[in-house]
Amino acid sequence: MSIAVCPGSFDPITYGHVDVIKRAATMFDSVIVAVSTNSAKRYMFTDAERVQLAREALAAAGVEAEVELVGGLIAEFAAERGAAAIVKGLRGTADYDAEVAMALLNRHLTGVETVFVMGDPALNHIASSFTKEIAAYGGNIDDLVPANVACAIRGKVKK
Amino acid sequence: MSIAVCPGSFDPITYGHVDVIKRAATMFDSVIVAVSTNSAKRYMFTDAERVQLAREALAAAGVEAEVELVGGLIAEFAAERGAAAIVKGLRGTADYDAEVAMALLNRHLTGVETVFVMGDPALNHIASSFTKEIAAYGGNIDDLVPANVACAIRGKVKK
Amino acid sequence: MSIAVCPGSFDPITYGHVDVIKRAATMFDSVIVAVSTNSAKRYMFTDAERVQLAREALAAAGVEAEVELVGGLIAEFAAERGAAAIVKGLRGTADYDAEVAMALLNRHLTGVETVFVMGDPALNHIASSFTKEIAAYGGNIDDLVPANVACAIRGKVKK
Amino acid sequence: MSIAVCPGSFDPITYGHVDVIKRAATMFDSVIVAVSTNSAKRYMFTDAERVQLAREALAAAGVEAEVELVGGLIAEFAAERGAAAIVKGLRGTADYDAEVAMALLNRHLTGVETVFVMGDPALNHIASSFTKEIAAYGGNIDDLVPANVACAIRGKVKK
Amino acid sequence: MSIAVCPGSFDPITYGHVDVIKRAATMFDSVIVAVSTNSAKRYMFTDAERVQLAREALAAAGVEAEVELVGGLIAEFAAERGAAAIVKGLRGTADYDAEVAMALLNRHLTGVETVFVMGDPALNHIASSFTKEIAAYGGNIDDLVPANVACAIRGKVKK
Amino acid sequence: MSIAVCPGSFDPITYGHVDVIKRAATMFDSVIVAVSTNSAKRYMFTDAERVQLAREALAAAGVEAEVELVGGLIAEFAAERGAAAIVKGLRGTADYDAEVAMALLNRHLTGVETVFVMGDPALNHIASSFTKEIAAYGGNIDDLVPANVACAIRGKVKK
Repeated sequence: MSIAVCPGSFDPITYGHVDVIKRAATMFDSVIVAVSTNSAKRYMFTDAERVQLAREALAAAGVEAEVELVGGLIAEFAAERGAAAIVKGLRGTADYDAEVAMALLNRHLTGVETVFVMGDPALNHIASSFTKEIAAYGGNIDDLVPANVACAIRGKVKK
Repeated sequence: MSIAVCPGSFDPITYGHVDVIKRAATMFDSVIVAVSTNSAKRYMFTDAERVQLAREALAAAGVEAEVELVGGLIAEFAAERGAAAIVKGLRGTADYDAEVAMALLNRHLTGVETVFVMGDPALNHIASSFTKEIAAYGGNIDDLVPANVACAIRGKVKK
Repeated sequence: MSIAVCPGSFDPITYGHVDVIKRAATMFDSVIVAVSTNSAKRYMFTDAERVQLAREALAAAGVEAEVELVGGLIAEFAAERGAAAIVKGLRGTADYDAEVAMALLNRHLTGVETVFVMGDPALNHIASSFTKEIAAYGGNIDDLVPANVACAIRGKVKK
Repeated sequence: MSIAVCPGSFDPITYGHVDVIKRAATMFDSVIVAVSTNSAKRYMFTDAERVQLAREALAAAGVEAEVELVGGLIAEFAAERGAAAIVKGLRGTADYDAEVAMALLNRHLTGVETVFVMGDPALNHIASSFTKEIAAYGGNIDDLVPANVACAIRGKVKK
Repeated sequence: MSIAVCPGSFDPITYGHVDVIKRAATMFDSVIVAVSTNSAKRYMFTDAERVQLAREALAAAGVEAEVELVGGLIAEFAAERGAAAIVKGLRGTADYDAEVAMALLNRHLTGVETVFVMGDPALNHIASSFTKEIAAYGGNIDDLVPANVACAIRGKVKK
Repeated sequence: MSIAVCPGSFDPITYGHVDVIKRAATMFDSVIVAVSTNSAKRYMFTDAERVQLAREALAAAGVEAEVELVGGLIAEFAAERGAAAIVKGLRGTADYDAEVAMALLNRHLTGVETVFVMGDPALNHIASSFTKEIAAYGGNIDDLVPANVACAIRGKVKK
């Protein structure tokens, strides 16, 4: 049974993420969404919130995938689970270079391969960071993130 | 009457910015330079200083353009003013990818188009951040920024 | 009155081209579609056919634009018409580098600026060359090119 | 059972190709190497030779994969075989842009996804075209292509 | 006697750095490794440690090069030493754009040229930042950095 | 004594080429301009003409460099001459990827390193191919190529 790991900070999950995870699910037998956590980074949402928002959004989109919090190296997590591959969505070229370096490093450390899939081009401009910035300015984010996430962001921004 | 909006943080305006704004002015009937401000970012110059330095530099270069401080989303500002387009200068490829995502997002939010113009290649290496760093080391910045800006940077650096 | 020139070989015009020309028409007062011709190149469609297909496709899409055949340098044509800018659509990075060199050369030769607009990302994968190749294999091209063009390509391919 | 299709002209197969096919075989249950043929292109090796060289080279490398000649669109071939994905190796950025357009087009035509894998960086500089050029100059190609291919190229070049 | 300057923050030196410095040493008569220091940046290792780790690592690799701490602009340092060129290693494209801007700026300021060399592709994925992150997670870094550096990083991470 | 080899087809030499060769001459003790020839390629100028135009143009620009015709692999030629490096100018990113692959291949074949230098950005848009196309349309090429070359191109184009 082939397993794919879809890693990210998912702070929070967007329609762009959902799209890539859905594509991974069509290609592999099962998908684990690995929500990374790193004490040196500052997130808008707590670990538990990021996992919960991802679970709800994937369920609402009808995508079957486990969602887990991962505190260590993604490559080691993928190797432990016996993953066939780490799956990443690709956008621009700048993106591509950093992702390639990370993919080679992950392979070097654990032998786990990374494959890149093309997201829906109509969602390419969606990034968690942009979404939070737009919400902070009072802009409309309903087309960028799932409904539960839009609601959660508005809750954070109000405070 | 076609209006172009040239956005940026202009912290401070450089000869590279002046060059792009000048080109926008040859293509559109009028140009608004939108100096963005965001309470989450740290600037070398205050909002008022950034606007003032831009106004002086453009006047000295003989470029006709309004300069305004914009606290919200640039795309919404452009839409409110009835702008035909947001105009951005392009440098490298890394630049290009981020700018494309932003352009698509702005169109998604408000329908305002973004157009990219080529700056003078002889000015491509000039960035506000480099200029401030060179000044901090006591280097010569007179070829990188207008005279009023060079003077203002030296004033800040001394402190 | 600001004029934009949209150049290309349009062999034949695709939905990607129509999209870019439509955007140019929202930004400038009038648009001239410049169908280039070069005796050293081999086209699928004759000069007259390429002009005709473009005219029909733009009319069907409700885009107001003149379509002209241009035998010389596009930059000189644009300068003669007093164009405010040459307008090009951008796709990938490889694209971008060649377009930038051409834009700088055109400015060097005639002073005419080039601006780049972002096409609809959902049409980014459409290129005249791909379309002809797909048709040659009997594939469906109805989503890639306007109806009159699809019909004309099928006519060519049959022979 | 998940099937991957690895397409290319393989004129002839190189160590770079073998490396990518091997990686695909670790991720999917079975791999079909699709040797494309197009009457409009000129190859160094005939259809039968390209298939035969690929079969021998993969067998020698211990990679299990079917090799088939494909005369039509790769995306349609992959769809007919029920492939989970088309698998491509990626090198530079120029590469990447063309591959992304092709991947989006293939998905548009048939719904088949394309995934990109990273080849071994130590083989990144190997291309069929370079290999043939080096052989034409009498250079050593033994590190670039499998032994059977090196022998076949030398045979062609002598003539 | 032609002198090359290899600049960087070297926080700490990696096998990727050693590889590039070694190549510079084959091309120029002598090499100065310029360890930059900037009070506005936060380093894992002190100035003295970064210099010392680089010296030890280069000696262990049999690379002859001076190592110096540089507090000012690298371009001015290179000009003062009469360097023929600043030598940088290149990895991805994103890298390339930023490096090109810096190279043009350095030439503008002091006339010193920058040349780019290709590191060993098998080391392309190694970056100081990745190495520190892997060590923080308890991962194995022995293939990424020289032995003295691996030991020093582990010492820092423990605390 | 460090030797640099500057290879190219130089069909014909442009101001962009002269600029890069001049920079190589400031960094290395001597420079050999290697005019490549390949019976499979079609040139505007004969081998002898390309060598002659390059010699004249470099002499007129006060650049000291030998010019030689090279019929074999550039890397082998560079190795035979004991070159410290092959020197190439870089323009866009598309360029960069192909050049990197070639550089790695040349190192693989002969151990000769390639270094990349930045040309003058004001000359970045100049390519031999563009220049010939402009001349064919009767455009002015005096700013793009040295005087002897402009004259030679006009002679060819007239016929």
